[in-house]
Amino acid sequence: MKDQNVKTIAQLLKGVKTQKPLVHHLTNYVTVNDCANIVLALGGSPVMADDAGEVEEMVGLASALVINIGTLNVRTIAAMLLAGKKANQLGIPVVIDPVGAGATALRTNTALRLLREVKPAVLRGNMSEIKVIAGIDACTRGVDSADDGANGVEIASSLAKNLGCIIAITGLQDVVSDGSRTGLIANGHRFLARVSGTGCMVTSLIGCCAGVTDDYYLAACAGLITMGLAGQKAAAGLNSNEGIGTFKVKLIDEVHRLTAEDILRDGKFVER
Amino acid sequence: MKDQNVKTIAQLLKGVKTQKPLVHHLTNYVTVNDCANIVLALGGSPVMADDAGEVEEMVGLASALVINIGTLNVRTIAAMLLAGKKANQLGIPVVIDPVGAGATALRTNTALRLLREVKPAVLRGNMSEIKVIAGIDACTRGVDSADDGANGVEIASSLAKNLGCIIAITGLQDVVSDGSRTGLIANGHRFLARVSGTGCMVTSLIGCCAGVTDDYYLAACAGLITMGLAGQKAAAGLNSNEGIGTFKVKLIDEVHRLTAEDILRDGKFVER
Amino acid sequence: MKDQNVKTIAQLLKGVKTQKPLVHHLTNYVTVNDCANIVLALGGSPVMADDAGEVEEMVGLASALVINIGTLNVRTIAAMLLAGKKANQLGIPVVIDPVGAGATALRTNTALRLLREVKPAVLRGNMSEIKVIAGIDACTRGVDSADDGANGVEIASSLAKNLGCIIAITGLQDVVSDGSRTGLIANGHRFLARVSGTGCMVTSLIGCCAGVTDDYYLAACAGLITMGLAGQKAAAGLNSNEGIGTFKVKLIDEVHRLTAEDILRDGKFVER
Repeated sequence: MKDQNVKTIAQLLKGVKTQKPLVHHLTNYVTVNDCANIVLALGGSPVMADDAGEVEEMVGLASALVINIGTLNVRTIAAMLLAGKKANQLGIPVVIDPVGAGATALRTNTALRLLREVKPAVLRGNMSEIKVIAGIDACTRGVDSADDGANGVEIASSLAKNLGCIIAITGLQDVVSDGSRTGLIANGHRFLARVSGTGCMVTSLIGCCAGVTDDYYLAACAGLITMGLAGQKAAAGLNSNEGIGTFKVKLIDEVHRLTAEDILRDGKFVER
Repeated sequence: MKDQNVKTIAQLLKGVKTQKPLVHHLTNYVTVNDCANIVLALGGSPVMADDAGEVEEMVGLASALVINIGTLNVRTIAAMLLAGKKANQLGIPVVIDPVGAGATALRTNTALRLLREVKPAVLRGNMSEIKVIAGIDACTRGVDSADDGANGVEIASSLAKNLGCIIAITGLQDVVSDGSRTGLIANGHRFLARVSGTGCMVTSLIGCCAGVTDDYYLAACAGLITMGLAGQKAAAGLNSNEGIGTFKVKLIDEVHRLTAEDILRDGKFVER
Repeated sequence: MKDQNVKTIAQLLKGVKTQKPLVHHLTNYVTVNDCANIVLALGGSPVMADDAGEVEEMVGLASALVINIGTLNVRTIAAMLLAGKKANQLGIPVVIDPVGAGATALRTNTALRLLREVKPAVLRGNMSEIKVIAGIDACTRGVDSADDGANGVEIASSLAKNLGCIIAITGLQDVVSDGSRTGLIANGHRFLARVSGTGCMVTSLIGCCAGVTDDYYLAACAGLITMGLAGQKAAAGLNSNEGIGTFKVKLIDEVHRLTAEDILRDGKFVER
């Protein structure tokens, strides 16, 4: 089963390259350029549009919708709700990134409102954000998690059942669950936490993969393995006089260069 | 004539470096940083300001105005109109980039409204966007063209006459027309289509060049040749373990390093 | 005294790495990603949030607040005032970057209003911006200074006394003053003026340092020395076929790699 899933995940990368899914983003202005470029690196086609007057039309052209609340405001929250509901009507998968849920009431309430009014295919967050959404005591610090990640499998599995969607929790070890299947991904590198936007970027990669399959559990796993492996390879390629600036550039290079064979050979993926 | 034009184009690069034109942008938040850096790389001085309360004053300080509708919204559309009209009054050239025209009614209508109320020096788009504006059946996919580029010369020439401005269509081969003169530019590299914002960036380069000459046809050609040549050189400089992340960094390097001599030697420019 | 201050500045870098200050930004969309990454490179934790409905709550979590008016608009100006006042109430240091003061009335008036309603720990600008705020005839060009920097010490010292905060003026030689102490920093490289956002980034670095000390004069010096030294090292590491694209990447690398020992050995810092 595990071997079959890794093969399917590897195939998803080929699917993105051949189908070039259009991934509509309502996302933050901090990391939006990185999201666009990582989607292009994987083989997808990004589009960013956030005016209420066009988001429903734009989402109708898309293979997937990414909603990221990183720099939410009153105007864009309204557009996120419109876009998300339209995507649900059209059967287009929605990937939600509740950036900073728990840090402020606006973020927590917006994340919860989005989850009430829009049914996501995948909810991707760090442990603090996911705990806040699950109603468990969490420790958020700004938009970064200050949680150690214990009990990730139980939390992901339980929240997946409650929300009826895939839960993807990123951390030292990533956890993905649909409520019955749970995958653990051990790829990655510590520099991924030292570059702005790697969380947003992995959400965009999941959006790409969700645009070419109906199995959103595997789409989430594929996005996470891709990011983790690219991070490892980018770090391995650094010279001694390079740091996180070059790492970020090479991260895009490595997503661009990553093959299905890389996934099969180096993906650290177990299921339970 | 062609040789003379190439020499004039090469001189424009020197003009930008010595005159450092201030290029005011109302542009999108996805690629705005790339636009700022490519203007600096060429030798210009970028400024981004989009509040209705200051755009008219800011445009009065500028040598050129770039209007890019990539992430338009109700607030910024109003500011674009104010800035564009003021630039027209002051005789400051306006370069319009109708990102995603055809993808949504808001984009198409905003592009058409801008063209009714503001007279551009140059309109720069991909084939889908230009066809939509010309009223020809087009195939847009998100904000990227899905058109093969046939009939580019006729479309550019005809639309240039109708709108009374330079039309620049980017694609595998770029086409620039003022209605009588038409230039074809064959520089470039396939990676330019794999990096977010290369369309926006070339529009900004055209803005720089339009800030130092009254011949906007040659300004458009200069911007396109610069981008195409820089793309070729950036790709030629990649190692086997590099991809579009490093390509984008080297693209800025190569615009920074490009000389008038490079244009004269390597520019693939023909006129008809 | 000078030696002791350099040692204290060097220690501030260690303080940032161990305390990881959360630096809340209300900043512009042009360079926001660079600000986030340079804060991470130094060891801090950036957060960007600008909705009036959450900025007061977010600033309450932060160790410092950065207010940068680079792409101000009516909505964000209101949020800047809310955030700044809350930071003052809570005793959280505020670093203000009056980008483009003097270029338009909106920018000048907003900068002056911020300084009336919010008490900054540090005001960081180029010579044109600082002169405008000091009420001295200045020459601004877009958002860049067109001033030669003469009389920097007197201007900084006088304005520091008037405003009761640290004044940091960046230029070929940086000047920092609290009204009695004045520091001059001669680190830097000409490419720092050829990359978008280096002014914004140094403001963010000052924000990081202000988050781990009460001596905001030394915090400002530490941010400026860090940026100048990283710029020198980044330029020294360029190959002959590289330019400002690679320089910007290496700038982040060098901030990431910079040590207290680098500051002690290579910092060009004098006081008078």
